Amino acid sequence: MVRCLELAFRGAGRVSPNPMVGAVLVDTDGQVLAEGWHDRYGGPHAERVAIEEALRRHGPEALRRATLYVNLEPCAHYGKTPPCADFIITHGIPRVVVGMVDPFPQVAGRGIARLRAHGVQVEVGVLEAACRRFNEAFVHHVETGRPLVTLKMAQTLDGFVATRTGQSRWISGERARKLVHCWRAVLDGVLVGSGTAAADDPALTVRHVEGRQPVRIVLDRTGGLPPTLRLFTDEQAARTLAIVGPGARPAYAALLQQAGGRVWTLPLRDGHLDLEALLERLGREGGPDGRPLQSLLVEAGPRLATALFRQGLVDRFFLFIAPRLFGEGVPLLNDLGVRAVDEGPRFEAHRWVEVGEDLLFLGYSRAG
Amino acid sequence: MVRCLELAFRGAGRVSPNPMVGAVLVDTDGQVLAEGWHDRYGGPHAERVAIEEALRRHGPEALRRATLYVNLEPCAHYGKTPPCADFIITHGIPRVVVGMVDPFPQVAGRGIARLRAHGVQVEVGVLEAACRRFNEAFVHHVETGRPLVTLKMAQTLDGFVATRTGQSRWISGERARKLVHCWRAVLDGVLVGSGTAAADDPALTVRHVEGRQPVRIVLDRTGGLPPTLRLFTDEQAARTLAIVGPGARPAYAALLQQAGGRVWTLPLRDGHLDLEALLERLGREGGPDGRPLQSLLVEAGPRLATALFRQGLVDRFFLFIAPRLFGEGVPLLNDLGVRAVDEGPRFEAHRWVEVGEDLLFLGYSRAG
Repeated sequence: MVRCLELAFRGAGRVSPNPMVGAVLVDTDGQVLAEGWHDRYGGPHAERVAIEEALRRHGPEALRRATLYVNLEPCAHYGKTPPCADFIITHGIPRVVVGMVDPFPQVAGRGIARLRAHGVQVEVGVLEAACRRFNEAFVHHVETGRPLVTLKMAQTLDGFVATRTGQSRWISGERARKLVHCWRAVLDGVLVGSGTAAADDPALTVRHVEGRQPVRIVLDRTGGLPPTLRLFTDEQAARTLAIVGPGARPAYAALLQQAGGRVWTLPLRDGHLDLEALLERLGREGGPDGRPLQSLLVEAGPRLATALFRQGLVDRFFLFIAPRLFGEGVPLLNDLGVRAVDEGPRFEAHRWVEVGEDLLFLGYSRAG
Repeated sequence: MVRCLELAFRGAGRVSPNPMVGAVLVDTDGQVLAEGWHDRYGGPHAERVAIEEALRRHGPEALRRATLYVNLEPCAHYGKTPPCADFIITHGIPRVVVGMVDPFPQVAGRGIARLRAHGVQVEVGVLEAACRRFNEAFVHHVETGRPLVTLKMAQTLDGFVATRTGQSRWISGERARKLVHCWRAVLDGVLVGSGTAAADDPALTVRHVEGRQPVRIVLDRTGGLPPTLRLFTDEQAARTLAIVGPGARPAYAALLQQAGGRVWTLPLRDGHLDLEALLERLGREGGPDGRPLQSLLVEAGPRLATALFRQGLVDRFFLFIAPRLFGEGVPLLNDLGVRAVDEGPRFEAHRWVEVGEDLLFLGYSRAG
């Protein structure tokens, strides 16, 4: 099953809004017959790839005593491809080991039921927690219709994202910055607030690692951001989505749309862009070519981060902590309204990971 | 050598102001002949203990082909005990492997020179960095005359030691609190400021683990702390040392001194107790029975911690970080005067260690 997840990860960043799936066919003596993974959106499913590979290399007889390992329940419906459950049954595979049930309503146990109805022995829930965490964005999107929100920040030991005079480059080290580029390459979209966009003029592209570029989303309630920003002018402008408030007419709109970029007008809530409405719409059509956007990396400053926490919209909080002290400066967050020690946002699960000189905190709002 | 450090640690908290030393005698075939460690201040040295044990168990012949491993250079002077170098020579031990040279001026290479002058083969500097870090307090005290200052604090992810309303118990988890008791048991003294003493009425004793009690030191410039505090009244009052400013006449003084405790009057500097003067005097006579105090655990609030950092007096910074957020509250430190990202206090070496749910940052002002 661990091998299935390794294979599945090869599709990271390219299969969305589909799940990442890997499959391994194993002989009775434990020998691997074939492997497969879902490689890109619209491409063949992992089970089909593995089965076809096994047929080529070992012939149809080998499948009649094989076990198929797959991290997600095989599908039972016609989507972009015919149902995998039928393909498994047709080839007489006697046993299937499944990591987790597919939460997608058109599957949701039907794949497993269909296999069992045809005499296939099915084991479900092997390394289930790991499989769920692995496809967390897919599961979250299926269950809520919104992208999984990963809030990423970087601070000093004592909780400052910049000095008093606003200096923030570079608080965290090179390995931390490289890891952020990995996240950009596997998550569907990257979001920044107008403060960060104006102050840093970020490119939000994948540069220090190989990988596909994410959709770049910038909040600009008043439409006042300078049209010269990289987000509006560079060679990735087609991947920029600007979010403005009602009545805002940004100077960059025409050129951005000409380059293939998008400008959305969203309602306000308490004078700010309605973040819930934004997530709903991103979950429907925020992705490339207007597909659903399954996952979102928010590279936020304190104001946007505080708003997300206050509205309970942070699904994962990834915080780099650098081994240094400022004493005073720009704090990580503004007021969350915490008065007693047990009132603040807690994480249902968390991990601490060393990244170069820095420490990375991974906080999950839902248990694994 | 690692075994030497393990043995040496058995004297932790009891040998100060001596170093912790462990010794292992090994036969030519690698068999351990005997082990020894320096167990308490004034007691026999590790080398002597190991050699006597080897004599008892294997006879004098075994020593003539043995190798002695010891984490610190054997002494060459008459202190509380006769020189270990002579003892090694007398018993004809042909080879000695030493972790580090003893920085103590009366030894400082003379032990090694003496051994070599008598034909003993001596190897020096095996696992030297680990040996130096292990006896960091001893080395620091010998080199500076002051105790090694370990500043310990506990905060949220976003750098708050208490909520806005001052609540701080318990930010960190049970395992973190237990570890602090371990530190109290192996470090010579524990220091708190008057703010912490008044607010928390801490006992500063070793409770959740086995171990000896530290000297308890409380800063009370004005002498205004309530005489009912545990530090002045409990069964450990003989181990309390109150530091007051010139002219202060604390109400607890007579009773504390009657119980065996001490009150020191120290000069002021910029209106505050002179912390450098305090460390100098603690390094001379702050320990039990007026012996030198080699190591100090400062369990500080933000005010005292900021003063220590500003004056460059923090040798080790041990910070617990709990996986929660307050958004606003009492910050870890006050102004350190940092304007540019590369100006703040940096640590020459650091480690990140998970302790239960929490993360422990270990920052060292000097490289290992």
